Amino acid sequence: MAKQKKTAITPTRDENYPEWYQQVVRAAELAENSDVRGCMVIKPWGYALWENIQRGLDKMFKDTGHVNAYFPIFIPKSYLEKEAEHVEGFAKECAVVTHHRLEQGEDGKLHPAGELEEPLIVRPTSETIIGATYAKWVESYRDLPILINQWANVVRWEMRTRLFLRTAEFLWQEGHTAHETEAEAWEETRKMLEVYKTFAEEFMAMPVLTGEKTAGERFPGAVSTLCIEAMMQDRKALQAGTSHFLGQNFAKASGIQYSNRDGGRDYAWTTSWGVSTRLIGGMIMTHGDDDGMIMPPRLAPSHVVILPIIRNEEDREAILAYCNEIAANLRKQRFHEREVEVVVDSRDINAGEKGWGWVKKGIPVRAEVGPRDMANNSVFMARRDTGEKQGIDKDAFVDGIVATLEDIQQGLLQRALAHRAENTREIDSYEEFVQFFTPENKERPEAHGGFAMSHWCDGSECEDKINDELSVTIRTVPFDRAEGGAGACICCGKPSSGRVVFAKSY
Amino acid sequence: MAKQKKTAITPTRDENYPEWYQQVVRAAELAENSDVRGCMVIKPWGYALWENIQRGLDKMFKDTGHVNAYFPIFIPKSYLEKEAEHVEGFAKECAVVTHHRLEQGEDGKLHPAGELEEPLIVRPTSETIIGATYAKWVESYRDLPILINQWANVVRWEMRTRLFLRTAEFLWQEGHTAHETEAEAWEETRKMLEVYKTFAEEFMAMPVLTGEKTAGERFPGAVSTLCIEAMMQDRKALQAGTSHFLGQNFAKASGIQYSNRDGGRDYAWTTSWGVSTRLIGGMIMTHGDDDGMIMPPRLAPSHVVILPIIRNEEDREAILAYCNEIAANLRKQRFHEREVEVVVDSRDINAGEKGWGWVKKGIPVRAEVGPRDMANNSVFMARRDTGEKQGIDKDAFVDGIVATLEDIQQGLLQRALAHRAENTREIDSYEEFVQFFTPENKERPEAHGGFAMSHWCDGSECEDKINDELSVTIRTVPFDRAEGGAGACICCGKPSSGRVVFAKSY
Ligand SMILES: [Zn+2]
Ligand SMILES: [Zn+2]
Repeated sequence: MAKQKKTAITPTRDENYPEWYQQVVRAAELAENSDVRGCMVIKPWGYALWENIQRGLDKMFKDTGHVNAYFPIFIPKSYLEKEAEHVEGFAKECAVVTHHRLEQGEDGKLHPAGELEEPLIVRPTSETIIGATYAKWVESYRDLPILINQWANVVRWEMRTRLFLRTAEFLWQEGHTAHETEAEAWEETRKMLEVYKTFAEEFMAMPVLTGEKTAGERFPGAVSTLCIEAMMQDRKALQAGTSHFLGQNFAKASGIQYSNRDGGRDYAWTTSWGVSTRLIGGMIMTHGDDDGMIMPPRLAPSHVVILPIIRNEEDREAILAYCNEIAANLRKQRFHEREVEVVVDSRDINAGEKGWGWVKKGIPVRAEVGPRDMANNSVFMARRDTGEKQGIDKDAFVDGIVATLEDIQQGLLQRALAHRAENTREIDSYEEFVQFFTPENKERPEAHGGFAMSHWCDGSECEDKINDELSVTIRTVPFDRAEGGAGACICCGKPSSGRVVFAKSY
Repeated sequence: MAKQKKTAITPTRDENYPEWYQQVVRAAELAENSDVRGCMVIKPWGYALWENIQRGLDKMFKDTGHVNAYFPIFIPKSYLEKEAEHVEGFAKECAVVTHHRLEQGEDGKLHPAGELEEPLIVRPTSETIIGATYAKWVESYRDLPILINQWANVVRWEMRTRLFLRTAEFLWQEGHTAHETEAEAWEETRKMLEVYKTFAEEFMAMPVLTGEKTAGERFPGAVSTLCIEAMMQDRKALQAGTSHFLGQNFAKASGIQYSNRDGGRDYAWTTSWGVSTRLIGGMIMTHGDDDGMIMPPRLAPSHVVILPIIRNEEDREAILAYCNEIAANLRKQRFHEREVEVVVDSRDINAGEKGWGWVKKGIPVRAEVGPRDMANNSVFMARRDTGEKQGIDKDAFVDGIVATLEDIQQGLLQRALAHRAENTREIDSYEEFVQFFTPENKERPEAHGGFAMSHWCDGSECEDKINDELSVTIRTVPFDRAEGGAGACICCGKPSSGRVVFAKSY
């Protein structure tokens, strides 16, 4: 057996994918668990990534006519109760504030005191509190539409948590809009799904399928939930964003009523849509490799690190000046409207350790500069995505950086698209379906399965049976489902209007 | 008696300053009270202002070497208890999470269930939770300094709330740094105070005094609290930002210990510093007038509104085209690195109502365009700060916009400086001091007092006595206190090393 290539991350993806994931988050210094159950600390490198996600999305929201605002973190229990399915969906996992001070007890310790008349829920999502506000704002059709987004933290008391993918507290944005007509609200729901798809593919280099969730996977209280779904490298699906058509459900629950053009009174039509820090988990599992994170350049906190290699103290000043000059010239370039961001890492630590640190963090381009490179007017450049390394003239390096970054961005998307294509299969027999989703090693399942495009009768019994037997769910019902033609349900054989996407998921 | 000029805000500042404030917040559509006790809804126009505050400060933080990160919203009760003064300061007003789900009771209603072993506090500030994290990150002096800022929401259960000035939930930034030496930590504390001062004066056009708080006004757990203090139009002081030197107090409480350069173990020296949405309250009370808000141009969500005046339908298209062309040309200009932001408000509502709406919102420049203006190749321009109005050639308007905005920005600062100078007085007799701080109308106090620069013996008895008798506190002890010369305490006559700033305050 050939000696295995040494990797920066142990275990590798093949050896243990879930553990690989945790180790990448740690090694890339993206986040860590805090002492507060289920809550994470987002470290500077991870938070800078989130800031870039925010910047990109925020511009797209504003370009589509939305403005930002901020609503209270607390939701009175009675508000949550206004929409029956909604409270049912969130009551089981919410943080409840019951007191408003701590008081010293007879044991000398502090105890909750000042009990609230009505408990407050730390928002798991804000439909109800925002709905109550819109009810005050809306009097006439002239007050519509309301197109507002909020950047905020939310809390859902998850029992099994995993950094970025499922945490008790997470950061997100939640758009909440109210419209005069059903058609307008539907248009908004679809438009924001399209914004998410564009963002996922163009910024994150993460291809996604779009479609509608089945009734069982809908947002509690929604009429319809649209979603973007991505395939991770272990072939599981990740729900990366959702856009909900809420019909008049929340408008009725909150009393968002307006005088219509005919002088009558109507309930508004509302939507909500959100993506969260979960996107970071999606990027790790889409692009990361056995050496750690790989950042898509459009979102990378920095694009290039320059590593001065100083073997003799007398070279230090000259090499640093050479590096700083290259950095200054790189920063004059623009990559998708952002300045090319460069770190000159002159920390006085072991050069190998330093270089590997940046590999694990996933910075798109590394450039090492030693005395010989300087003498040759060159740098030794390495691409994180392909591992490709080469000595290159320094001016060519600077002049070519935007093209290099674009090539990396496109390469990552193409690689992810190819991975998804390889692992997507039309399956028409239940036997093959079972085989597709059954790992050979049941103890420690290898990467298996993928997206099975199979027929479905629209019955929740078949959906439940497949979930019970194989832990496989319908990830999305494609909008163009019918175009592929009708068929027979993979489970019960009854008529199906078209294929849907089955997969295991996060 | 002359007929009073009609104002957009009722009551005027003279008639009832606190109520005027509430009405400006409402009329400018900055924020409103929510149904959740003490929590506000920040409306789009107010939130856009906050976004500009964030953008300005964030850049200054990054330029001084800081990075952003995110820490949990919940603080275990035991963490808060680690620092005795700290918990003493915050225990009386905190939101306590005691349960993690809601369950249906026999009464059919939902009740808190799933009691937590240890209650969690919704962060009132994050020294303890961040300290616990730094304790894990820091091993050696090589890991220092840590220079991190967090943008977040915090909760302090205030009993009497006022929009922006004092709310149960508010938005803020909190910097938390850890250093190897006392001197470095002190340098950081002072540096960030200077950043706040620069921001207040250059962006907010709000002059501030800097100095140190007395022991009684210190942040709970700090060794020293530095502050910026501004004078509002009613001559009360507003504490607008604080920078705390925490010594080793929190490092000891949290165990932030490092191996020093000599191989021994030392506790780190830490600082924290913050400003909040309170700054918006400060801007309203510094610049607003009896017609509403006045936005300093560097932070205004939009700089210019163009108001097409359409009297005949047949003019509509031509006038809108003319307005849009002016808007496009304005947007090509840069005001302090921001594009000049322009709204063309073509809403089909009453022209007077529309114009006054923008006055109340405080947009720096309004430009009305009717058929005659168009025929003259001009616009009718109004400045919000001075009320000055004039017809002006459209090219001159476009070419002059940056200078106009700069003039408004500087004018607002100069006006506020003059107001502060007028109402700052050196006072050396207690009788005069009492008179200075006593309104003529005790029922409904007129604007009175201001900053009294008086001598103080450094005794908390005198401080308390003045507070009890006059509700006047020492707002800040100037750094250059001694330069003005020694004297006798205004209260007890004992020696004083120099004057300090006394005022009533928010
Ligand atoms: Zn079926
Ligand atoms: Zn005294």
